[in-house]
Amino acid sequence: MNAQHFGEPVTGKTVSARVSPAGGLDILSRNEVARLRDASGSGLHQLLRRCALAVLTSGNLSDDPGSMFEQYPDFDIQVLQEDRGIKIELKNAPEQAFVDGRLIRGINELLVAVVRDIVYVSAQLEAGAFDLDDSVGITHAVFEILRNSRILRPQVDPNLVVCWGGHSISRDEYEYTKRVGYQLGLRSMDICTGCGPGAMKGPMKGATIAHAKQRRKGNRYIGVTEPGIIAAESPNPIVNNLVIMPDIEKRLEAFVRLGHGIIVFPGGVGTAEEILYMLGILLMPKNKGIPFPLIFTGPRNSAAYFEQIDRFLRLCLGDSVAEHYKIIIDDPAAVAHAMVSGIDKVRNHRLDNKDAFFFNWALEIPLPFQQPFPPTHNAMSGLALHRDRPRHELAADLRRAFSGIVAGNVKPEGVRAIAEHGPFVIDGEPEIMRALDDLLKAFVAQHRMKLPGGTAYEPCYVVRT
Amino acid sequence: MNAQHFGEPVTGKTVSARVSPAGGLDILSRNEVARLRDASGSGLHQLLRRCALAVLTSGNLSDDPGSMFEQYPDFDIQVLQEDRGIKIELKNAPEQAFVDGRLIRGINELLVAVVRDIVYVSAQLEAGAFDLDDSVGITHAVFEILRNSRILRPQVDPNLVVCWGGHSISRDEYEYTKRVGYQLGLRSMDICTGCGPGAMKGPMKGATIAHAKQRRKGNRYIGVTEPGIIAAESPNPIVNNLVIMPDIEKRLEAFVRLGHGIIVFPGGVGTAEEILYMLGILLMPKNKGIPFPLIFTGPRNSAAYFEQIDRFLRLCLGDSVAEHYKIIIDDPAAVAHAMVSGIDKVRNHRLDNKDAFFFNWALEIPLPFQQPFPPTHNAMSGLALHRDRPRHELAADLRRAFSGIVAGNVKPEGVRAIAEHGPFVIDGEPEIMRALDDLLKAFVAQHRMKLPGGTAYEPCYVVRT
Amino acid sequence: MNAQHFGEPVTGKTVSARVSPAGGLDILSRNEVARLRDASGSGLHQLLRRCALAVLTSGNLSDDPGSMFEQYPDFDIQVLQEDRGIKIELKNAPEQAFVDGRLIRGINELLVAVVRDIVYVSAQLEAGAFDLDDSVGITHAVFEILRNSRILRPQVDPNLVVCWGGHSISRDEYEYTKRVGYQLGLRSMDICTGCGPGAMKGPMKGATIAHAKQRRKGNRYIGVTEPGIIAAESPNPIVNNLVIMPDIEKRLEAFVRLGHGIIVFPGGVGTAEEILYMLGILLMPKNKGIPFPLIFTGPRNSAAYFEQIDRFLRLCLGDSVAEHYKIIIDDPAAVAHAMVSGIDKVRNHRLDNKDAFFFNWALEIPLPFQQPFPPTHNAMSGLALHRDRPRHELAADLRRAFSGIVAGNVKPEGVRAIAEHGPFVIDGEPEIMRALDDLLKAFVAQHRMKLPGGTAYEPCYVVRT
Amino acid sequence: MNAQHFGEPVTGKTVSARVSPAGGLDILSRNEVARLRDASGSGLHQLLRRCALAVLTSGNLSDDPGSMFEQYPDFDIQVLQEDRGIKIELKNAPEQAFVDGRLIRGINELLVAVVRDIVYVSAQLEAGAFDLDDSVGITHAVFEILRNSRILRPQVDPNLVVCWGGHSISRDEYEYTKRVGYQLGLRSMDICTGCGPGAMKGPMKGATIAHAKQRRKGNRYIGVTEPGIIAAESPNPIVNNLVIMPDIEKRLEAFVRLGHGIIVFPGGVGTAEEILYMLGILLMPKNKGIPFPLIFTGPRNSAAYFEQIDRFLRLCLGDSVAEHYKIIIDDPAAVAHAMVSGIDKVRNHRLDNKDAFFFNWALEIPLPFQQPFPPTHNAMSGLALHRDRPRHELAADLRRAFSGIVAGNVKPEGVRAIAEHGPFVIDGEPEIMRALDDLLKAFVAQHRMKLPGGTAYEPCYVVRT
Repeated sequence: MNAQHFGEPVTGKTVSARVSPAGGLDILSRNEVARLRDASGSGLHQLLRRCALAVLTSGNLSDDPGSMFEQYPDFDIQVLQEDRGIKIELKNAPEQAFVDGRLIRGINELLVAVVRDIVYVSAQLEAGAFDLDDSVGITHAVFEILRNSRILRPQVDPNLVVCWGGHSISRDEYEYTKRVGYQLGLRSMDICTGCGPGAMKGPMKGATIAHAKQRRKGNRYIGVTEPGIIAAESPNPIVNNLVIMPDIEKRLEAFVRLGHGIIVFPGGVGTAEEILYMLGILLMPKNKGIPFPLIFTGPRNSAAYFEQIDRFLRLCLGDSVAEHYKIIIDDPAAVAHAMVSGIDKVRNHRLDNKDAFFFNWALEIPLPFQQPFPPTHNAMSGLALHRDRPRHELAADLRRAFSGIVAGNVKPEGVRAIAEHGPFVIDGEPEIMRALDDLLKAFVAQHRMKLPGGTAYEPCYVVRT
Repeated sequence: MNAQHFGEPVTGKTVSARVSPAGGLDILSRNEVARLRDASGSGLHQLLRRCALAVLTSGNLSDDPGSMFEQYPDFDIQVLQEDRGIKIELKNAPEQAFVDGRLIRGINELLVAVVRDIVYVSAQLEAGAFDLDDSVGITHAVFEILRNSRILRPQVDPNLVVCWGGHSISRDEYEYTKRVGYQLGLRSMDICTGCGPGAMKGPMKGATIAHAKQRRKGNRYIGVTEPGIIAAESPNPIVNNLVIMPDIEKRLEAFVRLGHGIIVFPGGVGTAEEILYMLGILLMPKNKGIPFPLIFTGPRNSAAYFEQIDRFLRLCLGDSVAEHYKIIIDDPAAVAHAMVSGIDKVRNHRLDNKDAFFFNWALEIPLPFQQPFPPTHNAMSGLALHRDRPRHELAADLRRAFSGIVAGNVKPEGVRAIAEHGPFVIDGEPEIMRALDDLLKAFVAQHRMKLPGGTAYEPCYVVRT
Repeated sequence: MNAQHFGEPVTGKTVSARVSPAGGLDILSRNEVARLRDASGSGLHQLLRRCALAVLTSGNLSDDPGSMFEQYPDFDIQVLQEDRGIKIELKNAPEQAFVDGRLIRGINELLVAVVRDIVYVSAQLEAGAFDLDDSVGITHAVFEILRNSRILRPQVDPNLVVCWGGHSISRDEYEYTKRVGYQLGLRSMDICTGCGPGAMKGPMKGATIAHAKQRRKGNRYIGVTEPGIIAAESPNPIVNNLVIMPDIEKRLEAFVRLGHGIIVFPGGVGTAEEILYMLGILLMPKNKGIPFPLIFTGPRNSAAYFEQIDRFLRLCLGDSVAEHYKIIIDDPAAVAHAMVSGIDKVRNHRLDNKDAFFFNWALEIPLPFQQPFPPTHNAMSGLALHRDRPRHELAADLRRAFSGIVAGNVKPEGVRAIAEHGPFVIDGEPEIMRALDDLLKAFVAQHRMKLPGGTAYEPCYVVRT
Repeated sequence: MNAQHFGEPVTGKTVSARVSPAGGLDILSRNEVARLRDASGSGLHQLLRRCALAVLTSGNLSDDPGSMFEQYPDFDIQVLQEDRGIKIELKNAPEQAFVDGRLIRGINELLVAVVRDIVYVSAQLEAGAFDLDDSVGITHAVFEILRNSRILRPQVDPNLVVCWGGHSISRDEYEYTKRVGYQLGLRSMDICTGCGPGAMKGPMKGATIAHAKQRRKGNRYIGVTEPGIIAAESPNPIVNNLVIMPDIEKRLEAFVRLGHGIIVFPGGVGTAEEILYMLGILLMPKNKGIPFPLIFTGPRNSAAYFEQIDRFLRLCLGDSVAEHYKIIIDDPAAVAHAMVSGIDKVRNHRLDNKDAFFFNWALEIPLPFQQPFPPTHNAMSGLALHRDRPRHELAADLRRAFSGIVAGNVKPEGVRAIAEHGPFVIDGEPEIMRALDDLLKAFVAQHRMKLPGGTAYEPCYVVRT
């Protein structure tokens, strides 16, 4: 339930305030404060400003990041060293984040997470502490960022369910995500999502009610985001653990390493990207035998959506791909039961292999899944979408195709590339191309390609069928 | 949001289980356990059984207590002394209170409150510890019961807002109560209500969201009920502090002594009873100068309701009665501001008078407001509803009139009396009688006289206009 | 380690202050505050004043209650109702309880316990809530007082070790009690004593160090005292749960009902009284089979003391009495092991019998052990100290003999009786009389009959051998 | 009070166990676990083993690190990655660290600190994250290590008192340190020391008692040590925050950056080194005006010690040096008052300068104080001990002279150097040399040069007077 529902109009009014960071912000060194302060040309300050504004408009329904900056053009943020720690100075910040002039505490905590992650990643990158050319090195970078954000918790039994799905779904689908979250919450599951609205918020909301009824303390509603997406999908106000990964690939790896199981709700291309990412990894021969519950679910009316996805996956990757997921329609309690029992298998497997509960070290994620995919026309046309390759490699390129379309739809660089050079051209084996085209057209027909601002969808791609 | 919303069908299925009482149940002595166990003829066991079932169907939408017992005819509860404290044995309890065979923790806590209060009140009554013939004695009984329930908290600044209103209101009105609760919650107010659905649940729900956003801990959602009403208005699942007062008058006194301010949402005769109770007290000459914020509020569409109430009150009690309340339409933030500033006055007044924050000792509540009003035909026809009496006495009798109608509508004894002797006859000064008749008719027209089971309303009274 | 060790001279200087009661003081009603305030003739105020002064001189080495009042003749205490709860007003209180004008928090908590218990007991007595003519009624009174003091804790495994022994013991013996407490503390045992110095403090002190090393939280150092003894044995500052029972017999019953095992260190007549009380109960035929670990222990040099006690017990009560206790000399770890394993048996027995962990309901304590013994010359000479009676009855009268001597030594009424009528005369079977005489003489020789003020011991009794 | 006092003989017996690290051990990555495991030649494993053994013999009175390893030659430690986090495997560990086969929790926590710091420092050094050739870089390294150890706490008012002084002092002096700690503890001060016995333990012990009496939670007993000294001065069991700095200079800087004031108790050359380090910094012209309470204190009998130090300091550094410290003899309450009021000035200064409370960024510590001083014959003879230099430079070299003597007395490399090449030769201005010689001789006479093993002191230096 977002702020507006409770009568907080997005007035465009602003507040300026100096706030004490709420618990959890590590002590910063003078260097780090200086780094954040140095506003001049540094990209860091812009990054901080953008992420901070996203957090301050938490709960905002608009998913058009541009409009956010238009609305608050004078917004600025500075981090200051002060006697008892640090202070965060906000100028012309959205009024909706405040109550009677005081920053809402939950938003304060999200703001702290933003500062923490931006400082940490930038310091580590500058110090050359991450080895990003190497698969193991990237995994360690993901680990270190998560550890620094205090999201890894030892001594806790596996119970973290990642929920994927669209940020802009129908009311019916949204209510369903809440009901699933409620059933998970009754069973002591915690929730991790991409931290925006829609399917990223519903499960957290349902779990919140269930956790309250169970009087459960220490609940975790983890949001994993990245600078390119945070503005479009600003963290919902339930998120109480936020981490900002440096890019989309590390964000995906974070989901997979953190979560003990994944539930996919209906969504659009972004969701398709996530599904292919996950299946690509699970199809890796080396990952055979590692349990990983993966459930596709939606309400009665969304059954067709998953049938379509299922058909597409079987076509491209063979029928056996379906062994890696379970489709459950309109039955939240069954979803919860399947997830709880799947996670129980994960638990036993980790015990048998003396593997950590808090980080999935065992799963091998090959470099192509880890390296950022630049959404350029060249890269898109260079994808090898045919079935005479190992399945996980095809899955990797399909993932990239969807990733490019997401970028072409909403990310600044992708949008620019399309504006300059026209739509991406995606080429490949005709049968796959047709299936892809059908799938994308169905997404458009079902309004799953909603764009910022709500204008009619003009495809950013051409599929060479 | 009640259980059903999340797909827990009220199946009529049952679970039998032995549960450990969740935190807060005081250690019982062998005597007390024996008293509860002694199932035979004792009314105590029936009382326990009825209240326990109400709690176990918490969140149930039906407000027909009879139906509840029909649905679970074999339900039983026993309290057992065991090694580490006590155990509660449930037989054939409603399945909806359990998740995978385990009692939901929040419901467990409400059950503990039920046992605690029933044991305590019965032991005190038996020991003759309460002096119930005397105004001061009754106030002390109210105090002792609240103290025993751990609801009185020292060292806390005044922040407890009592919310009154109908348990069966329109969607629009319900959403409004949530929005008001949200604005109160953002400002660190706690909520106390009659603990059922509707206007008793909405403010708690809104406050829950706001408290979560403010990361506030130790929130109090206090439900004050009594055995005659708990079955019809079973505690909503947000209530985390429940107290069962022995009767409706002590319940009303508890609201007034506990709360630092009262908000009245739209409701029916029960709400009218509460308004007249409160105004009757505030009109007492001795209570002059004691601040007590009292706000009537509802959404735009309910404006007419409060206009009607206001007219009725002014007619009966004179225009100056309106100095004691404020009507705010469709503005949750304004309600919160008015309440916060009203409570600030309460705080200062208590400081000036060295009076406790946790219990309003200063307010004088005369015996007629404290003594149970038996809903008999004699009593009803004996009310003196004319304006040549002191205003607070008239208010007291008007309160009784509404109380009798509530009983005639939903309470077992009242319903029986009506069935035997026909409708109550209410008599008095013609102008008042006409106004009363109009008011009651308007309640009927606005569906505010909804009965258990949902049948069309057949008035249980005749107003002699 | 008492205050003086750290350079807080008992200066006789005083401080007047109004203090907020530290956590745990229940909200008092206006009645209760009035009762405490009513200073005039009421014995209650004197009782409060005496107990409060004892607590404020906590850690004081003097065991002469008279001297305490001489030193602080103008000390007074009032309880006031105030806005946020109650306030305690102290006038001319001992400076040593304050740091820079602020009452030490631990002492504040003890003061709160004093007010709480005095109010509670007096209110219950006045309301006639306790049935003190009846064994079961007395046990319930003990239960109710302990419950009201929050000392009974459900959901906790048996781990409470009662330590008895002299308040004025040798350095060597004192160090030994610390070492035993340390070994108990390492093994998660909590400690309950009579709350004064010497053997009542050492075990708590040792346990404190061990608990700190084990980083154990929620440790309980329970002191059980009564108004007649609190001034002579003021609570040591480690006590964090204090309860003031109405008289010596209820204090003894509290030890036995609360504790899961008892360790007896060397002491004087008071300790002998405690031993006979305990053995008298364990010898009751009805209590056969109820496990209750009872260990007598001391350092190497105190071996003779327990040999003497052992001989006396065997002579009076028969050799089989020794089955009820274990003597361990100079081996703290062995004491801890024996206690832990004895408590394990208690635990299993309670589980088998579905008996509470927090209160020993099963043990039968006959009325003669429960009723106050008035230390008069008549009562003392009326004791039937011969072996042709049931053993537990003889034990009961032996207990009374020691109790009378304690009173004659230190309690105001006893001391007065001796001053007026000369020493008590104790008569009985010659062999027992000789043994008793030897035992008492040995106590004198070993300086175990130390009196307030430190004057040479002048026996308050004559044994007719 | 150390273990032995409570009858835990240092038996030489051993225990092997796999333990779960107690709270606070961050999640380790696979790399980090591998690094610790790689036992072969790596110095890291030896370092871990040595520090771990020191911690496991916590409370041991012996200060001869060699003897520790002789006693437990087969001791080994491995860190293992396991399902719920990591496990620590101990082989042939000292029995005294266990109770009935379970590692004492406090020792477990210290062990966790050891692993944490060794992993962190080694990882940072390897990654080249610290710039150790530069004064600012070294300060940042100190900051990062302290931050990683969670010792820096924001939002806390200045209250950290560093206590310096000998680890092997007289009973009288030790008791005095406790009394000072007690007075500090009563006033909510936390304690930071070098974490060994003697003057490093007494203040913590006294504060523990006071904190308990004040029912203060969250107390900090911070021990700052380094690998070269931890074995000789193993952390006392009260320490609940331990950090292992990489070398003596960073340890000294940690004291100065962390502490809000320093109390110096009597000690030997190590203490003299600390005094000169502190004064050298305070004499820096750039540090003028930065408040830093520095108090020298001891019992009556130790007055001569500080007179001697005072004379030496005035002679070498001029009378005005005495403006930087206050000498208080035999008055713990006065010490506490002076410290509390000094820290109040620190607080105000930080507020005025918007400086952090948790880290003293403002104080300039020049590179010569930060760089490790190698205790070689060359380095020692190269010191320029004459008064025609800036005072802070002379102080720096005097500090080095004492540092070299400490090394020659107890540190492996220093002891080896002395064994090979004979005593260090210290040369300089005759008057200083004579004063130095007198001071050192007095230390010897007062048994302040006690060596491991307790043999008679054979000076490791020759002063060229």
